[in-house]
Amino acid sequence: MQIIHTVAEFRRWRETAGAVAFVPTMGNLHAGHLALVRTAAQHAPDVAASIFVNRLQFGQGEDFDRYPRTLDEDAAKLRDAGVAVLFAPDEAELYPRVAQHYQVEPPHLQNELCGAFRPGHFRGVATVVAKLFNIVRPDVACFGKKDYQQLMIVQGMVRDLDMAVRIVPVDTGRDTDGLALSSRNRYLSPDERAEAPRLYRVLRRVADALRGGACDYAALERQAAAELSAHGWTVDYVEIREADTLNIARVGMARLVVLAAARLGQTRLIDNVEAFSNGAALAV
Amino acid sequence: MQIIHTVAEFRRWRETAGAVAFVPTMGNLHAGHLALVRTAAQHAPDVAASIFVNRLQFGQGEDFDRYPRTLDEDAAKLRDAGVAVLFAPDEAELYPRVAQHYQVEPPHLQNELCGAFRPGHFRGVATVVAKLFNIVRPDVACFGKKDYQQLMIVQGMVRDLDMAVRIVPVDTGRDTDGLALSSRNRYLSPDERAEAPRLYRVLRRVADALRGGACDYAALERQAAAELSAHGWTVDYVEIREADTLNIARVGMARLVVLAAARLGQTRLIDNVEAFSNGAALAV
Repeated sequence: MQIIHTVAEFRRWRETAGAVAFVPTMGNLHAGHLALVRTAAQHAPDVAASIFVNRLQFGQGEDFDRYPRTLDEDAAKLRDAGVAVLFAPDEAELYPRVAQHYQVEPPHLQNELCGAFRPGHFRGVATVVAKLFNIVRPDVACFGKKDYQQLMIVQGMVRDLDMAVRIVPVDTGRDTDGLALSSRNRYLSPDERAEAPRLYRVLRRVADALRGGACDYAALERQAAAELSAHGWTVDYVEIREADTLNIARVGMARLVVLAAARLGQTRLIDNVEAFSNGAALAV
Repeated sequence: MQIIHTVAEFRRWRETAGAVAFVPTMGNLHAGHLALVRTAAQHAPDVAASIFVNRLQFGQGEDFDRYPRTLDEDAAKLRDAGVAVLFAPDEAELYPRVAQHYQVEPPHLQNELCGAFRPGHFRGVATVVAKLFNIVRPDVACFGKKDYQQLMIVQGMVRDLDMAVRIVPVDTGRDTDGLALSSRNRYLSPDERAEAPRLYRVLRRVADALRGGACDYAALERQAAAELSAHGWTVDYVEIREADTLNIARVGMARLVVLAAARLGQTRLIDNVEAFSNGAALAV
């Protein structure tokens, strides 16, 4: 596996490669990332991964400075997983003028759900993904469904800006107790870690109710949030949305997703569960 | 020359081509566009041109509806000029969801100079150019210096979003009396057409003064605007700026450009003249 730190060198590598499947990450890799790599490998002969902790997508008071940087361990995992090239630029390489003057501006969805609690986050995500796509020029890129709103925004950007890349969603990796894998799980105390799987249990219960025909979405959201609050969570939101658009859910929609963000102590966790009444998989 | 109307068909053509130089236009082609094509042909074996009147970059009350559409004549000119492929999508092809939900947001420069009079114009330009670049995937793209602010915004976008395309600026084409070639010149009455070359004369005089060491920029701008007003023009602006950034000019800067927009009757004309005190050419 080659490790490349500059845009210019990556472009030279790209000229010699054929089809490329791309897995962008912020590092601190876990099994969920490696599932993205395995999926990517099914879509192109060469897998390119990137590691870049993108300041643009962190807000004031968020964990940009303490976000774990573990490049050596990450590189070893990616090498073992068969990645052909790792793009690991430093900040001055992607933001040489410090500020990012031209940004990709997503629609109002950027200010809903997680966006309501993380102003500017999805603009920062869309912008860095656009930059990485322009550097890596992948044929396919894999994104985890754990960051469901991010996946929808990247898919929307690709479609709306006519980017020549196919976005492949990958199911959320989970621990044996159901907790969605996340780099932020390492912030949890042992007690918090024991409590954390409740988030997925609560969302599954909502999704089961939806599949069973429940249609008082507001009540389902309220009950789920109340259960989390009763167990010490600070709930940012629990929301039922249309799965393909993240539009507000309306009765009769067959493809729904229930999403939540809630905090245990200082650690903010997110998760989601799809609820398709016709059993269809996510359309891409 | 192939004429292609859909994104899917263009992508298929692109896969078979080597290096491509691109000339995006809104059609109604004149000798200035053909100079762009000639320059493009020096940079790649295949020249792709596009014709698309981009609604996003027209404001309320502007001439989107009456902008001249002359596809057959334009195609003949491009064929004669040696263009390999003409991409001429209709509106539903580039804006299938009618609204453009993801936009490229330029920095504050988008609200200065012409942007102060055409709100949203440069966002619309940046967004459609990003879309066209994603479809055409050119190695090189040629833009005329007549739309100097547009050129700077496209260059800034390409640099800041790491787009893999080299922007080549092309000198403004002019009629024998100096009037910058523009599709909008056809809106001029015979009297207005006779008056129109004054814009270039006035800007050249300012540029000459700058090269001669004049440094009261505000006075130069005021005098130029006054001369135009005295001859029936409605002046939007005459401004001296730094040539490479379009930052406000400060005394001592060696590379300046004087830009103006002014209206004769209903027709808004723009022009600019570079004034380099060291004789250097525009750095790209």
